[in-house]
Amino acid sequence: MLTQIKNPDYPIFFGDAAEALEGFLKDQYFSKLFILVDDNTGVHCLPRMAALPALRNAEVIHIPSGELHKNIQTCQEIWSALIRYQADRKALLINLGGGVIGDMGGFAASTFKRGIRFLQIPTTLLSQVDASVGGKLGIDFMGVKNSIGVFQNPETVIIDPAFLQTLPAREIRSGFAEMLKHSLIRDKAQWDILTRVHPETPEAWREQIAASVAIKQAIVAEDPLEKGIRKALNFGHTLGHALESYFLESPQPLLHGEAIAAGMVLETLLSEKLGLLSAAARDSIFVEIARLYPLPAVPTSAYPVLLDYMYQDKKNEQQRINCSLLDGLGSIKIDCTPDEDLIRAALDQYNQLISLV
Amino acid sequence: MLTQIKNPDYPIFFGDAAEALEGFLKDQYFSKLFILVDDNTGVHCLPRMAALPALRNAEVIHIPSGELHKNIQTCQEIWSALIRYQADRKALLINLGGGVIGDMGGFAASTFKRGIRFLQIPTTLLSQVDASVGGKLGIDFMGVKNSIGVFQNPETVIIDPAFLQTLPAREIRSGFAEMLKHSLIRDKAQWDILTRVHPETPEAWREQIAASVAIKQAIVAEDPLEKGIRKALNFGHTLGHALESYFLESPQPLLHGEAIAAGMVLETLLSEKLGLLSAAARDSIFVEIARLYPLPAVPTSAYPVLLDYMYQDKKNEQQRINCSLLDGLGSIKIDCTPDEDLIRAALDQYNQLISLV
Repeated sequence: MLTQIKNPDYPIFFGDAAEALEGFLKDQYFSKLFILVDDNTGVHCLPRMAALPALRNAEVIHIPSGELHKNIQTCQEIWSALIRYQADRKALLINLGGGVIGDMGGFAASTFKRGIRFLQIPTTLLSQVDASVGGKLGIDFMGVKNSIGVFQNPETVIIDPAFLQTLPAREIRSGFAEMLKHSLIRDKAQWDILTRVHPETPEAWREQIAASVAIKQAIVAEDPLEKGIRKALNFGHTLGHALESYFLESPQPLLHGEAIAAGMVLETLLSEKLGLLSAAARDSIFVEIARLYPLPAVPTSAYPVLLDYMYQDKKNEQQRINCSLLDGLGSIKIDCTPDEDLIRAALDQYNQLISLV
Repeated sequence: MLTQIKNPDYPIFFGDAAEALEGFLKDQYFSKLFILVDDNTGVHCLPRMAALPALRNAEVIHIPSGELHKNIQTCQEIWSALIRYQADRKALLINLGGGVIGDMGGFAASTFKRGIRFLQIPTTLLSQVDASVGGKLGIDFMGVKNSIGVFQNPETVIIDPAFLQTLPAREIRSGFAEMLKHSLIRDKAQWDILTRVHPETPEAWREQIAASVAIKQAIVAEDPLEKGIRKALNFGHTLGHALESYFLESPQPLLHGEAIAAGMVLETLLSEKLGLLSAAARDSIFVEIARLYPLPAVPTSAYPVLLDYMYQDKKNEQQRINCSLLDGLGSIKIDCTPDEDLIRAALDQYNQLISLV
């Protein structure tokens, strides 16, 4: 069964990926099809699609898995493969995988011969609820996440919850963090639903995936180029990205959603410190996130490193750290600029709180 | 004296660069200004601007001169400099230089943090009449010219003929080839004017620069994304780019305009062979171009190499070589697809003709 999530810019299909892809390809001309996969999706997801007659002559481009490979070197490998296979401007790149595949494949396509078309089939919960809408593409550069990229919409996005069966529980939880975020910034009723389900059983809350995508879609539609309200989606990400970068080189790197979960706790603390959020709301958010995520201790020695990362954030202006903070459950205030002392205080409080659970 | 060339997407100023830049910067907020220069423009052009008070705190980014450096490595140096200087999304990159600076600086800006604003001050005749309109940005990759890039408009373009005084005569002639091309595809009257002037004395035909930009502007405005008539601008470029790539590794590489001059001769021969152009028109074009440009002999052994390059051309579809050919002086026919034999025959005829002059 295939449904469509409302989106003015391109169709987002929700349901069986092979059926959706077949329907899409039937109506269009492409000179050649390319499928970008990584070590995981080449094994676990590609076989679900490969039987489609329309894909018989498609070329498969393999790249290594993981955020560490979301860089200009891997991007050059994709461009090289497209040149080797003589891809012209009417070629289509099908990105089959998680956020790394979608972000980097989309960027590679958008810059190859000044732009070929591409299609996203996100296979992780994170990429389904996050990367499927918004047209943000890119790679990491000099250790700064997504610092090189473009805004460009795909031809279509196909979200198939069946791919979630191929994921470890930890990956599902990671994506679930972005669903929690969507509910916290816009929809208290969804927050109440999500705090009552188990991330381990996505079949039970399958429809919430579409609802979560719809929240993001509505916000992006209001502000496609991130001049204003779209910054709401950065809740948890100013501190979360810094933590993700910091722990990237540790023996136990965080998944993106795990970093964002910790970032949401920290930015919830900031929200309360700035008088935007009640202590009761702060506590209920902390309890819920602490129940689901392993919140890592942050050594004091890491504070300056984290602040350095935050100063590199794309949302900043005039070198002030910019956060989107909560002014209620389901409500956001963009363009908050907490100073360094307040951020240090939030980090101290965070370390104290997690030592108690 | 400052005039403006009509353009719906962004202003194109024609006249004193410092005056134009000062006027532009006065009206806008930028968090930081960056000026991209190469070995030549850092010495010969930057001093003309550096006295502007608005540029007092600008950071200068230096890159090496020349097409050989229009690659992903140099692009990474630009991105690195922007990160080092903590450029945020409200920064402005001023590209002061020829086509390499404009194409690569524009690409670097358009992809840095998913796009910062940039401004073009083309300092060569070629970049003034060619790169100043159209939003085509990019770098060379795997030996294929401009194979990685995007379409993106600058904030404004400032064309100052005074910069031409800093150029060697050979560079002026190179840019003059694109002016000849604009006249051949759209404006026989301008062709007649240009065939009566001397490329060595740009002061005498200074106003023709603005007229040439206006031709390109009109064509691009009809078809910004190169789906149709904009391909007219590729006259001379299918074979010209192949020659440029081929001779790039020879002891005497061609300047872009020199390669395009030879490409225009070859595509004029193709036009006549396909019955689009009279023998008289063909001869008048050949005589004029042979008068101005050193047309290199093309060894038979180079033919397959040239054809390989042509198959890599971004304009191709379904792996057929696509040319825009003349069907009259001042008139173009797009989407011609001469076969390999005809292209070989044109190369033979070209070699024969140049042996006679």
